[in-house]
Amino acid sequence: MATEHRIALIPGDGIGTEVLPPATAVLDKVGARHGITFRYDDFDWCCERYLHEGAMMPANGLDQIRHHDAILLGAVGWPGVPDHVSLWGLLIPIRRQFDQYVNLRPIKVMPGVPSPVRSAEPGLEFVVVRENVEGEYSEVGGRFHRGFADEMAVQESIFTRPGVTRILDYAFELAATRRNVVTSATKSNGIVHTMPFWDELVAEAGLRHPDVRWHQEHIDALVAKVVLDPSRFDVIVGSNLFGDILSDLAAAVAGSIGIAPAGNLNPSREFPSMFEPVHGSAPDIAGKGVANPLGAIWSAAMMLDHLGHPDAGAEVVAAMVDVLGNTPVRTADLGGTASTEEFTKTLLDRI
Amino acid sequence: MATEHRIALIPGDGIGTEVLPPATAVLDKVGARHGITFRYDDFDWCCERYLHEGAMMPANGLDQIRHHDAILLGAVGWPGVPDHVSLWGLLIPIRRQFDQYVNLRPIKVMPGVPSPVRSAEPGLEFVVVRENVEGEYSEVGGRFHRGFADEMAVQESIFTRPGVTRILDYAFELAATRRNVVTSATKSNGIVHTMPFWDELVAEAGLRHPDVRWHQEHIDALVAKVVLDPSRFDVIVGSNLFGDILSDLAAAVAGSIGIAPAGNLNPSREFPSMFEPVHGSAPDIAGKGVANPLGAIWSAAMMLDHLGHPDAGAEVVAAMVDVLGNTPVRTADLGGTASTEEFTKTLLDRI
Ligand SMILES: CC(C)[C@H](C(=O)O)[C@@H](O)C(=O)O
Ligand SMILES: CC(C)[C@H](C(=O)O)[C@@H](O)C(=O)O
Repeated sequence: MATEHRIALIPGDGIGTEVLPPATAVLDKVGARHGITFRYDDFDWCCERYLHEGAMMPANGLDQIRHHDAILLGAVGWPGVPDHVSLWGLLIPIRRQFDQYVNLRPIKVMPGVPSPVRSAEPGLEFVVVRENVEGEYSEVGGRFHRGFADEMAVQESIFTRPGVTRILDYAFELAATRRNVVTSATKSNGIVHTMPFWDELVAEAGLRHPDVRWHQEHIDALVAKVVLDPSRFDVIVGSNLFGDILSDLAAAVAGSIGIAPAGNLNPSREFPSMFEPVHGSAPDIAGKGVANPLGAIWSAAMMLDHLGHPDAGAEVVAAMVDVLGNTPVRTADLGGTASTEEFTKTLLDRI
Repeated sequence: MATEHRIALIPGDGIGTEVLPPATAVLDKVGARHGITFRYDDFDWCCERYLHEGAMMPANGLDQIRHHDAILLGAVGWPGVPDHVSLWGLLIPIRRQFDQYVNLRPIKVMPGVPSPVRSAEPGLEFVVVRENVEGEYSEVGGRFHRGFADEMAVQESIFTRPGVTRILDYAFELAATRRNVVTSATKSNGIVHTMPFWDELVAEAGLRHPDVRWHQEHIDALVAKVVLDPSRFDVIVGSNLFGDILSDLAAAVAGSIGIAPAGNLNPSREFPSMFEPVHGSAPDIAGKGVANPLGAIWSAAMMLDHLGHPDAGAEVVAAMVDVLGNTPVRTADLGGTASTEEFTKTLLDRI
């Protein structure tokens, strides 16, 4: 019995357009082995569109992708379009309108991918669970006395009990399937309204999940510990901003910032979830055919998981590990000379 | 001609009380060689005081130290007293009321102090300039519908043109005495009111300092780069929260989180500046006489600089480098067996 999934593809900007074809090729190949077919719809929402039409996506853009099973995104952002225009016109609305309140970032030291940190050995693995739709990323606030000597800007972070509770429950439940330990990122010694509230809700989540141990660390001490002793972590949960910072830091510690994946999940499945490589549009190498497609491919593997095909997803990750561990084929960012196409071909052969 | 300085000592909690005597011993020894004498006044403001008297310091505490030439602080915080009570009852009011708007954190890989990061070699050196009195650390905001299902917490970050401008000018002027390059930490793609404002003021500061090159990095990418390639940085400037995160991260990258110093500076010198080791009160080792006094001693060296004695300050740092590089004597945190007292004695002998 064949399963068909409808996938919305948003290549976006720069190398985003170069890494999605490898990802769909991998999906098709692994899908064929598992009786899964994919129907792709392409959406050319990007900074160039913004420059021509004044908007990153059409007014009814979200309606066009609302009924897809998942979204695969390449990268958003390009010089000349301010980040807060491109991101808040495309990426952030998708996260919010589709209530993708979990940003899941698995971290893994891959064989053959050197880590900048001495103690990060192949096999090291943990996951950052980031709140993805509220908190510090907020349109509430503004500018006062613009242009005058006493000008100021006010930014409101808004943390809600339901919003924090559900991300914490997600993290604790995930921990229960892993090593049973959650680290909460806080800064309640400096951020005196939202962070003590976050800490209280963490303690409540701990009571709801008595089998999971948890502890909290102030974000400044935590970033230090991620560098000093990454193997002590399993599930780290943080607010929108802290999760953003920790997931890039953790990917760097694993040496894998260029290949790290992210899932923007709507766990209720009322709306599609979105999968995207962590790397950006990389204007410096865009158009040269040398981008590393592993971030997009790994993201596609996360999508397979989410769509109910964990075996297929695991096969993709195994093929990645195989190529990196057992062949010298790699793109320039990992010290090789392979083009995106050559690398993808090598990987496809191993699925 | 002898110079006399009046120093307010606030040992605070835990190992804070163990690391200040070594610092004053060093100050006295190096002072004697340079015709500088110190008069110390001790203030027992700490968590124990809070537990007995309901306040970290007396109501007129700030008036008691307002006319000192500088403040040397040990550490604040102890289990049983919430951090937001101990810090906001002592450390933060001193920073704010004495308008110590610069938090200066020099980072240096010391000989014999191993870094967790492969590429961080002895000699690596940069500095984090952190805004220290406004921004994300704010008492504005609060809790709504406390205890109910729809409870929320709101936290306002407030960035002012004068507040941001003066920290940027400090950073650019510092860069002009060093390698002429400033890195600004931002997150204007996610934090849409305050961070684009910060970026605008950075661009204006760049125009005021045409000889200094500058660039900006989003905080998520920046923490990754600090780990991947720390030697590319010289002066990093950030908001209160971003500077806090970056300075601990950078100290970890340098392997020196336990010995890093901080200066809380009031550059106008209308009020005393405060110097403090970055490490905390360390309840796990407090009372055992094994704390590493180098953070406090290095902070005292920064204080000498600030008081107009850069040669004396440099001698203290040279003695630190000498002991770490040329003797096996070190405290347990650096893999040695020396007590605080033994280590201090070795250091004093080398001044
Ligand atoms: C203890 C805490 C409030 C403080 C801060 O965040 O400012 C500390 O982390 C520091 O960096 O001095
Ligand atoms: C591009 C930016 C708005 C985004 C974020 O901060 O969420 C990115 O850093 C990420 O982590 O997906």
